[in-house]
Amino acid sequence: MLTEDELDRVCVVLVRARNPSNIGAAARAMHDFGFRHLRVANEFPVPFQAAKSAVDASDVLAGALTYDTVAEAVADCTLVIGTTSVGERDLQHELLPLSAAAPKMLAELRRDGDSGRVAILFGSEKTGLSNDELSHCNWLLTIPMHEHSGVRHPSMNLGQAVAVCLYELVRTPAHDTEAATNTEPANASPAAAANLERITTLLLSVMEKTEYTRRHAHNCDPAHVRRLVRRIGMDAVDAPVWLGILKQIVWKLTGKRED
Amino acid sequence: MLTEDELDRVCVVLVRARNPSNIGAAARAMHDFGFRHLRVANEFPVPFQAAKSAVDASDVLAGALTYDTVAEAVADCTLVIGTTSVGERDLQHELLPLSAAAPKMLAELRRDGDSGRVAILFGSEKTGLSNDELSHCNWLLTIPMHEHSGVRHPSMNLGQAVAVCLYELVRTPAHDTEAATNTEPANASPAAAANLERITTLLLSVMEKTEYTRRHAHNCDPAHVRRLVRRIGMDAVDAPVWLGILKQIVWKLTGKRED
Repeated sequence: MLTEDELDRVCVVLVRARNPSNIGAAARAMHDFGFRHLRVANEFPVPFQAAKSAVDASDVLAGALTYDTVAEAVADCTLVIGTTSVGERDLQHELLPLSAAAPKMLAELRRDGDSGRVAILFGSEKTGLSNDELSHCNWLLTIPMHEHSGVRHPSMNLGQAVAVCLYELVRTPAHDTEAATNTEPANASPAAAANLERITTLLLSVMEKTEYTRRHAHNCDPAHVRRLVRRIGMDAVDAPVWLGILKQIVWKLTGKRED
Repeated sequence: MLTEDELDRVCVVLVRARNPSNIGAAARAMHDFGFRHLRVANEFPVPFQAAKSAVDASDVLAGALTYDTVAEAVADCTLVIGTTSVGERDLQHELLPLSAAAPKMLAELRRDGDSGRVAILFGSEKTGLSNDELSHCNWLLTIPMHEHSGVRHPSMNLGQAVAVCLYELVRTPAHDTEAATNTEPANASPAAAANLERITTLLLSVMEKTEYTRRHAHNCDPAHVRRLVRRIGMDAVDAPVWLGILKQIVWKLTGKRED
């Protein structure tokens, strides 16, 4: 079980959700397990008022926030996790089964300072999360499903997937979390996603300005660079230092100061 | 995970299910986790053909069996479990949280002789299982939910409740600790110290050449920068990429290639 404060530092992010009844089902599962922060990253208006299946979940829906991009939706989060049904996708990320992912999320919520914020991303039902959307994630989780011979890999209904993931988070007893915390590398306080994104943008700019892009074009895809930056597991206190170094490089190369 | 034979000895029993889309959602969750035997206990005909949300679950729906009574629906089962959201009901049964119920169900499926058959009953969304229906059960399970102050106890959506219960059955590993160890992420191959040191040296050079040292002298002590680089916990495969980026910056700033 999570404390009220821990529940308050988890966001469920629906990316390109189109079906109001799925948004409603996700909100209802959140309400059932005590989660409050629903975010929707969509390029078009979201029909919250049509989310009819959200019995009891009106508070969750009323408080839902909408964003144009995934980057904005996760900007204040220190751990960003994508959900995937795997399948044929060529994954660039570390992938954990849900039961192993939950203790790591809890460890982030429970580390010293209570400043960890966890976002769990769910893609659209048809396509899941795109590679670009996945590149905002620190790592991925999957709900292990049955392999049906001769049939394509199943994908879960969105509302059911949200329910199962949140259930796993609240079911995990305290001692599991401790184990995960102890084996975890000392990552005292990870950088927020917004700073990682600023670092990514500056790094892409440096690659361009130094003509690195000409020599190593295959390393310069934005999604690739975004993953490279996420993999380093940067501490929050170090983010301003790296930002400062990158800004100084850009200034030296161009004569212009980034804000 | 369950064997095919074990999956074959579990029945999901929907009692007085009225909404075709809930029946479809239950069937889809069964398909996702590999369960096959759906039974519906209803006094009136069940509209299987209208169960539209059952993507991929047509086999489960086609094989579903209907019964007039709960007694008939569970007749061949050796362990019958009712699901309940508790609330104000005066329970006459032993009640277990789902995480404690799953190992008992697995034990029944795995006892000598492989003759155990487990039924999990889900009531109608409005009323749950009646006391009479509950009386067919050996014991009850509940999915622990959040207590919202001043609000009636939440009850889960039927499709989501089925998904969560079946997930718990297939997620439970033989030994929790063993599974946790084996699935522990994989930062398997950290960058060698030699590469971290080359990165440190190049970074110090970039700081110097870009005049970062003049603006932020307190960040430029070599030992400080060395710790900064070590803290990022770089993967071995990423080290050459970072080295390449730094070399290119130095080249652009000085016109000289580092070896």
